[in-house]
Amino acid sequence: SEEGDEMVIGSINSPVINLYNISQYTFGVKDKKMEKDTSVNARLTRMEKNFKEAGLRRTVEAVLLVHEHNHPHILLLQIGNTFFKLPGGKLKPGESEIQGLKRKLNTKLAPSGFSEKPRWEIGDIVAVWWRPNFETLLYPYQLPHITKPKECKKIFLVKLPPQCAFAVPRNLKLLAVPLFELYDNAQSYGPIISTLPQSLSRFDFVNISPLPPTT
Amino acid sequence: SEEGDEMVIGSINSPVINLYNISQYTFGVKDKKMEKDTSVNARLTRMEKNFKEAGLRRTVEAVLLVHEHNHPHILLLQIGNTFFKLPGGKLKPGESEIQGLKRKLNTKLAPSGFSEKPRWEIGDIVAVWWRPNFETLLYPYQLPHITKPKECKKIFLVKLPPQCAFAVPRNLKLLAVPLFELYDNAQSYGPIISTLPQSLSRFDFVNISPLPPTT
Ligand SMILES: [Zn+2]
Ligand SMILES: [Zn+2]
Ligand SMILES: [Zn+2]
Ligand SMILES: [Zn+2]
Repeated sequence: SEEGDEMVIGSINSPVINLYNISQYTFGVKDKKMEKDTSVNARLTRMEKNFKEAGLRRTVEAVLLVHEHNHPHILLLQIGNTFFKLPGGKLKPGESEIQGLKRKLNTKLAPSGFSEKPRWEIGDIVAVWWRPNFETLLYPYQLPHITKPKECKKIFLVKLPPQCAFAVPRNLKLLAVPLFELYDNAQSYGPIISTLPQSLSRFDFVNISPLPPTT
Repeated sequence: SEEGDEMVIGSINSPVINLYNISQYTFGVKDKKMEKDTSVNARLTRMEKNFKEAGLRRTVEAVLLVHEHNHPHILLLQIGNTFFKLPGGKLKPGESEIQGLKRKLNTKLAPSGFSEKPRWEIGDIVAVWWRPNFETLLYPYQLPHITKPKECKKIFLVKLPPQCAFAVPRNLKLLAVPLFELYDNAQSYGPIISTLPQSLSRFDFVNISPLPPTT
């Protein structure tokens, strides 16, 4: 037959990502890290001002995953009791994505001062979103006929070490949210976070069981 | 400063995918390829019967992309005037994903008989969806506490050659649909196709202009 003549070629494998149980990590608190803007309008106005000075706004965000009761959870920061976001932020002019994302993760999640920082291993790009105008909506593609997009937001998979210590600013909460809670839930998590399960589905997440305590 | 001590490491790049203009391809017709089932219920009943005999149903589907008026379009098959789907289908027992997807693409899209088939280059996994029960809903993760999922659907990016001839079964339509038409449009395209723009956003699609005609 037509197919019989072809060589049997192996499957294309999903990239394997090791996840560790949430009990492997410690979560402390540190000083407040205030938002720069007090309203959405103030934020968009500041964006427009910065765009005139520096051009395209480049932001980077991290998907950090842990295992809990045997399914993958994403670490999300919560501001107040409503708004969720991925840890990350705006790159400085000339700053590389990897350098900037590590800086932002340290600001948002690492113990302060001379304490040891988690070893952030920046992995694959998970998704890229574009802001065509100084408005709240972003799109997972460049809009036709928009020659000067205002922001490019890249979301990276960041691999966590088997153990580390986090410290979260006092005014933020860090939550581990399972994929099935995010899926199809744009109302609570917005269009970007609620469709992460789709973009992450190509990975093979492996649950690494906690090591037995050393004596 | 803390950041100043770090080496400046380069950016992580999006994988580059070359796309060709739709005018580079030809689209013919061929004999009807009827659906095996005449209703959703008949389909689910057949699935349940097959599962008892052969276990997990493995399906593979392709995202084929072309450029048209300078933005990426996905090739979708339309059945009747409503239902859209990606080209692909069910693997035979023991068949590899690559072999099976090529077989399905030839059945659905290649000229029949001894005509030359398009050179399908099976690329990265775009998304993986799971069917936990004999029901219509699939999820982009394995549902907790479902030990025996009923179907695993893998969606691959398939790179097209710069030119080739397609032939579409007479009872189906082949459409090139732009990403911005699919995005946030589950009502028309369903949960899988309407969130492809998010999963594809990590790629850098490059528009390869048509070659000047050779003389
Ligand atoms: Zn559970
Ligand atoms: Zn949980
Ligand atoms: Zn256009
Ligand atoms: Zn079009």
